[in-house]
Amino acid sequence: MTRRIEVGCDFIYDSAVATPTIFQVQPSPSPVVTHVVESWTAQPTMDLRSYVDVYGNRCTRVVLPAGRSSFRYAAEVEVPDTTEDFDLYAPEVAPDDLPDDVLVYTLPSRYCLPDVLANEAWTLFGDVAPGYGRVQAICDHVNQHLTFQYGSSTAWSTAADVNSTRLGVCRDYTHLAISFCRALNIPARYVFGYLPDIDVAVEQVEMDFAAWMQVWLGDRWWTFDPRNNVRRKGRVLIGVGRDAADVAMATTFGGPILASMHVTARDIPQQ
Amino acid sequence: MTRRIEVGCDFIYDSAVATPTIFQVQPSPSPVVTHVVESWTAQPTMDLRSYVDVYGNRCTRVVLPAGRSSFRYAAEVEVPDTTEDFDLYAPEVAPDDLPDDVLVYTLPSRYCLPDVLANEAWTLFGDVAPGYGRVQAICDHVNQHLTFQYGSSTAWSTAADVNSTRLGVCRDYTHLAISFCRALNIPARYVFGYLPDIDVAVEQVEMDFAAWMQVWLGDRWWTFDPRNNVRRKGRVLIGVGRDAADVAMATTFGGPILASMHVTARDIPQQ
Amino acid sequence: MTRRIEVGCDFIYDSAVATPTIFQVQPSPSPVVTHVVESWTAQPTMDLRSYVDVYGNRCTRVVLPAGRSSFRYAAEVEVPDTTEDFDLYAPEVAPDDLPDDVLVYTLPSRYCLPDVLANEAWTLFGDVAPGYGRVQAICDHVNQHLTFQYGSSTAWSTAADVNSTRLGVCRDYTHLAISFCRALNIPARYVFGYLPDIDVAVEQVEMDFAAWMQVWLGDRWWTFDPRNNVRRKGRVLIGVGRDAADVAMATTFGGPILASMHVTARDIPQQ
Amino acid sequence: MTRRIEVGCDFIYDSAVATPTIFQVQPSPSPVVTHVVESWTAQPTMDLRSYVDVYGNRCTRVVLPAGRSSFRYAAEVEVPDTTEDFDLYAPEVAPDDLPDDVLVYTLPSRYCLPDVLANEAWTLFGDVAPGYGRVQAICDHVNQHLTFQYGSSTAWSTAADVNSTRLGVCRDYTHLAISFCRALNIPARYVFGYLPDIDVAVEQVEMDFAAWMQVWLGDRWWTFDPRNNVRRKGRVLIGVGRDAADVAMATTFGGPILASMHVTARDIPQQ
Repeated sequence: MTRRIEVGCDFIYDSAVATPTIFQVQPSPSPVVTHVVESWTAQPTMDLRSYVDVYGNRCTRVVLPAGRSSFRYAAEVEVPDTTEDFDLYAPEVAPDDLPDDVLVYTLPSRYCLPDVLANEAWTLFGDVAPGYGRVQAICDHVNQHLTFQYGSSTAWSTAADVNSTRLGVCRDYTHLAISFCRALNIPARYVFGYLPDIDVAVEQVEMDFAAWMQVWLGDRWWTFDPRNNVRRKGRVLIGVGRDAADVAMATTFGGPILASMHVTARDIPQQ
Repeated sequence: MTRRIEVGCDFIYDSAVATPTIFQVQPSPSPVVTHVVESWTAQPTMDLRSYVDVYGNRCTRVVLPAGRSSFRYAAEVEVPDTTEDFDLYAPEVAPDDLPDDVLVYTLPSRYCLPDVLANEAWTLFGDVAPGYGRVQAICDHVNQHLTFQYGSSTAWSTAADVNSTRLGVCRDYTHLAISFCRALNIPARYVFGYLPDIDVAVEQVEMDFAAWMQVWLGDRWWTFDPRNNVRRKGRVLIGVGRDAADVAMATTFGGPILASMHVTARDIPQQ
Repeated sequence: MTRRIEVGCDFIYDSAVATPTIFQVQPSPSPVVTHVVESWTAQPTMDLRSYVDVYGNRCTRVVLPAGRSSFRYAAEVEVPDTTEDFDLYAPEVAPDDLPDDVLVYTLPSRYCLPDVLANEAWTLFGDVAPGYGRVQAICDHVNQHLTFQYGSSTAWSTAADVNSTRLGVCRDYTHLAISFCRALNIPARYVFGYLPDIDVAVEQVEMDFAAWMQVWLGDRWWTFDPRNNVRRKGRVLIGVGRDAADVAMATTFGGPILASMHVTARDIPQQ
Repeated sequence: MTRRIEVGCDFIYDSAVATPTIFQVQPSPSPVVTHVVESWTAQPTMDLRSYVDVYGNRCTRVVLPAGRSSFRYAAEVEVPDTTEDFDLYAPEVAPDDLPDDVLVYTLPSRYCLPDVLANEAWTLFGDVAPGYGRVQAICDHVNQHLTFQYGSSTAWSTAADVNSTRLGVCRDYTHLAISFCRALNIPARYVFGYLPDIDVAVEQVEMDFAAWMQVWLGDRWWTFDPRNNVRRKGRVLIGVGRDAADVAMATTFGGPILASMHVTARDIPQQ
């Protein structure tokens, strides 16, 4: 049983000079997300070149021309009509038994500071029984510890900064929860994607990209969302990485002005 | 009923050049601390000039000569043979009713960051009944939150830094507790002094200067010690200020090497 | 020969609850600034209580009522029709010869970090001939090093932060220049005031309070303005302190919304 | 014409509990470095498991047993008897023309903050002619800007921190130079390795691992060493990564005490 959703985004940029840019807006290939249709629109026309980065993410390289340009990505995808799975019994894995390629997700990174927050993590969660429940305890804590407030953090705010101010947006919630997991030697990575409001009562706000995390327990990655802290239907993952420095809707080599941005992620009503 | 204690310190410095220095080592005049005898010894001889700073502290200006110099201060004082007083019913004072001259102790300073830690303070203590008990709750929290560890913080570590790392020494405990008080609009100031181990079982460690805080409740300053978090006998206050930047045993205008330092603060056995 | 200028400000606040507030908006008594007329207007009526803080600043305590309130201060003052004085030969004072009461202005404070920036200061200015010219060299450097940009710094940005980002507003320029002076053992303090555009060609921007600094050379404080870096006519000083934490147009004990603010500082054309 | 050098290291650890650890001590496979012999010695015996991380580095997984353990790696390698190559005409590559897999080295990371230092980079180097010479200008600047001092920075110090304090060790020099390169959209990565003193007059100090950087110019990575800032013979690269968080001689999942460490990197005299 699946559900069809529409995802996408459009940007308008004003650039003083031609600006090389990397977009990460395309749903990641996945067993559970099926692409039905997909379209790119750019005005003026730009060459698009795709590649897959070191984390396996689909990236699109483009050069924004000088002047005003607009860029639109739209897709319809099919997702399972079920809330994401979980396993309360999924165990933490001893560091020595972690697969080689997940070890990188135990290290500190630009915004995630398990080194600085090590004592905080061990004091708060050191006595909690290891496993899925401990990661859930981290999410519960972060969800309570922080208050969501637009503009309360900046592009440079680290997990330690927002741990002090107790204010942040979804990327900050995610950075803090990731930092705690890594401090406990639990691999955790940052996810960036579309999060439609399927069967969820939410305040009516302008849709935005969403950030959440994946945590390695047992033999796979599990989804946790310290910001919303409920299981959801229909997450459409765009990219994963060590933190928000690795996955961004747009990484620009230059300083274009983002004149407007809209994000779409919505259920397509079924006849 | 009083008790006589011996306080003092000696320093040896190696200076490349003559170095103006301000010492703050002398017990502050006080109704409860009586100076019996006092001596200064410097080698080679140096001119000492005293003044009282903006906070009312007794400071001594001296120029350390080039080469090795030593400096010694010793005093005998009489202090009450009672633990410091407290009043569980001392009330917080509405900001509008605070005396003009304590208002400065509600502001942020070099190491005390009530601005950064405002949400932390209000979340932890906003619902605690105002008054002496709330300040005690702050001390209890800080005492638990931090772990004492020499070398875990630096001369630049702020209250927000140690709140994240959960490690510090007595000045860090004090800076953090002061930050929480100020965030709640409770005036709090940093105290630097001698703390003998009168009638207290303590580990045998090299004696050092101690830092604690005073908090304005009702109509006066009250002593709180977030590091030790017990009431003590025989505190001998040297100076008060906004934080450790204001009161230091030695502020040097240059970079002499402190070759050794010893601090004395001990009960004089009574015949 | 004097000139008459009009200074003042008006604020509108929306407060959820009655909010004790300290305003610093009144020109500081001075031999060169003569008050002609002065008026306070508050809506609704509020009690005003004046006091002088530890730095000698005139402060006004008030309680903003719940709901919307407005507050207006206006004054006419006479100032000399001359640019501020200077003395290229004013010498730095050896730390040992500094007056007791200026020593506090050599210490680090909330936003001014001579400790962190000590090497930067000595490397850049250690070989510059001491005296007025060295302080001017600091101002020239800071004026070039930073780029003025509204919104580039926050209420928490220190001198070290803006030294890295090279972006700031007038308070940041001042904090950075003060930090360099103090690192060199030159007393420097933060000034907050009105700065009319007398005989100066300036861009037409919304008037705001201005920040500059005073530096102790010879036997007095001298005015330096690292943001504008030119001598001006008609500075009307409101307050001085260690940094912007000490002197602010409004220090509120609570979180009222500042709905609007206007600042006036202008030459009154003479008939 | 080659030269034979001996590289290696030995550690002694005291662990409270069995501690999973990743060592990065083995020279990286390379066209110019030939392994002659290689030996691992561990006391007590430990299982070694090798893997190659996401950056292509050879890593060795091991579990340090509880109690005292020692670990030794030794190798003889042949390296060219020539100083490392360079090309003053190697050009910067427009971001749009960079290979996909080097793009990651333009992003901020744990210790390298091109975002925070962007203005600093563009102000200092924006007008320098692009290419090899500009990267050399960055190295010259960093080499001058910082003063080498053991203990002046911590495991948490970022490039922005040491840019302010002007003090650091080789990793800090490298982080700062990398940050400037990335800010200018020049890919730069951190290198960790052995650096013997071949044909170089150096002070006699305890040998340590060394850090330097590689920068992408033209169609390949070039070696730059902001700490020593001279071309050298015989660098033996162990690992590359975004910064020191990615490549470390030992990443431990737990807190063993490093009781001693010795590093060897020396010319083997030829008969």
